[in-house]
Amino acid sequence: MYHATLWIDVGSLADHIPYRFVVIYAKVEGRIIGPLSYPDDSSNDDSDSAKAPSNISVIKYWGKRNEALILAVNESISITLDLDHLCATTTVAVSPKFEKDRLWLNGKEMSLSSDRYQNTLREIRSRGDNFEDDEKGIKIMKEDWMRLHFHIASHNNFPTGTGLASSAAGFACLVFALAKLMNVKDDMSQLSTVARLGSGSACRSLHGGFVKWVLGKDEKKGKDSFAIQLEDEKHWEDLVILIVVVSSQQKEISSAKGAPLTVATSPFLHYRAKFRLLASALRFAWCITVSGLCILRDLTVLTLNIAPKEVVPKRIVEMERAIRSRDFATFAKLTCADSNQFHATCLDTSPPLFYMNDTSHRRVHSQVRELM
Amino acid sequence: MYHATLWIDVGSLADHIPYRFVVIYAKVEGRIIGPLSYPDDSSNDDSDSAKAPSNISVIKYWGKRNEALILAVNESISITLDLDHLCATTTVAVSPKFEKDRLWLNGKEMSLSSDRYQNTLREIRSRGDNFEDDEKGIKIMKEDWMRLHFHIASHNNFPTGTGLASSAAGFACLVFALAKLMNVKDDMSQLSTVARLGSGSACRSLHGGFVKWVLGKDEKKGKDSFAIQLEDEKHWEDLVILIVVVSSQQKEISSAKGAPLTVATSPFLHYRAKFRLLASALRFAWCITVSGLCILRDLTVLTLNIAPKEVVPKRIVEMERAIRSRDFATFAKLTCADSNQFHATCLDTSPPLFYMNDTSHRRVHSQVRELM
Repeated sequence: MYHATLWIDVGSLADHIPYRFVVIYAKVEGRIIGPLSYPDDSSNDDSDSAKAPSNISVIKYWGKRNEALILAVNESISITLDLDHLCATTTVAVSPKFEKDRLWLNGKEMSLSSDRYQNTLREIRSRGDNFEDDEKGIKIMKEDWMRLHFHIASHNNFPTGTGLASSAAGFACLVFALAKLMNVKDDMSQLSTVARLGSGSACRSLHGGFVKWVLGKDEKKGKDSFAIQLEDEKHWEDLVILIVVVSSQQKEISSAKGAPLTVATSPFLHYRAKFRLLASALRFAWCITVSGLCILRDLTVLTLNIAPKEVVPKRIVEMERAIRSRDFATFAKLTCADSNQFHATCLDTSPPLFYMNDTSHRRVHSQVRELM
Repeated sequence: MYHATLWIDVGSLADHIPYRFVVIYAKVEGRIIGPLSYPDDSSNDDSDSAKAPSNISVIKYWGKRNEALILAVNESISITLDLDHLCATTTVAVSPKFEKDRLWLNGKEMSLSSDRYQNTLREIRSRGDNFEDDEKGIKIMKEDWMRLHFHIASHNNFPTGTGLASSAAGFACLVFALAKLMNVKDDMSQLSTVARLGSGSACRSLHGGFVKWVLGKDEKKGKDSFAIQLEDEKHWEDLVILIVVVSSQQKEISSAKGAPLTVATSPFLHYRAKFRLLASALRFAWCITVSGLCILRDLTVLTLNIAPKEVVPKRIVEMERAIRSRDFATFAKLTCADSNQFHATCLDTSPPLFYMNDTSHRRVHSQVRELM
């Protein structure tokens, strides 16, 4: 009952909360990070239920380099939350009687017309395989999936639009449930590219533990922009995530609306995401090599000058190392810095975006000071 | 009486206010921007009083590339406030009887031991000239100024440490009063390099109207890092500055303490201030030219890729143009963007600095939306 009240109160600054509570992480016993799993009661013939957890990033994803494919401007790292705490539960059903795809979200029918849903459904359908159950007399060939329609019912056990990644849990769950229904043979990382088409951060909810969404180089189809598990949920068992509720209001501007605005107007975001000239300079260095090693040496100096300017790519490397070695001080420092920098790019957006308030500021202020 | 109450309430977020009220500037009749001047009653023989106004930047100064000389990491542009509103009044006296320099600030004696005061006093003393008044029998030779001591009494008619640039008004006034006393022949821009040694933004208070603090190239002595007047106070007479009080608390971290922290820890600040690699790449281009024009062409492309990444240097040019042509829309847009970006660098600092609160956020939010 206490929990129910707690979640109802999660507010506009929840987007920030993940970062603040990281600084008040503590070494406490108890399992809190869980992998994706099916609930025990998913035994229906022509329908499947799945549960998918939410995830909270410690190196932030904010902004896309490709809006349609949902390819991020930078890599991100997250921690998957325990299914017993924040999760989406999705039941999917298929029948020749269904005339169109339909979705009920938290009991209310929603439109599936957006590109996000259409791209996700088209992609997962294309991966469907033959399904046979002689005992029950069911036989669906892979090409049938393109004609059959789904009924989808999804439920989150926490409020949507509050920065607790409800769309991440939701799309991960949708893709996972449909994949099971259609006998899709993909592994979790392959499935994560499908979930990504619905919501970028959803790709990270396909794995438990510590997860990285890799940038990828396939700019045309985005096939190599998927999530990989850095460490499983048992790796750092005395790490706990505490969610502090600071407001009862929803976000004024959703992430889906806010992030493109940042991409379009914030000079800081592009600097933060990746210093693209590094790549240019390196290519140029190679090109020059043909004509003389002396010039190459000079260009290498130029390249070294550029390299320390990078922000996220450097932090990704440092964060992976901190997680691997369970180095809490570095982990917390990087998480705080990246959270604050994410909010800084929001403030650098025109018009500015605010996902923190005085209460969250005060928390950061006092907690970070304790840490330093 | 109403005004008195108003100023007492100026709070921790006053540092932000200048930016917010810019968006609520309106075309209103009335003179509000005033130049530096003497009050009419400064007629004492061996003492001089001066009044100096505060100034509010529209392109922000935050962070020094040289702490001792107070050389900024980027150029800034400000508007000088009317002396009738926010100003410092300083009276300086000299006498062979004075045993040491002494300062009373708002009626309370303060130490002059800090580098800021010592550098300012040493520099202005070195510029003193012969002073003779036959009628009153006063004769002070220029070399005498190095031996004589001052008594300085300064008073601000607005609260200190609230982001309304009290130190700017104070140091501008101190330097101006001493210059008059010692018959210093420097013009305002030359004097501004002395005021700068006390407080960076003080250099801008030596001029009325619209003022730019130029970066300068003299890294050893900072002699060419001074303030110039872009336009005088009559240039844009229907522009008014409105100061909105949002909190009654002082800043938690002073600018003097906060800015060096940003310089030391914020990746964004250095990107914002100046993209230094541009210069490197250009120098390299020239170096290469010796061996072949073909390579130069390639490097020029590289340089062009770098150039658009600049933030403040580009805004300075655009702001100068907007002020010159009284283009309010551009002026307001740039002012808002730069204010928000300044606060973004504060948030990107470790530990983060907050000079805004929920009230100021709301103001920005609603006012900027109206403007867009």
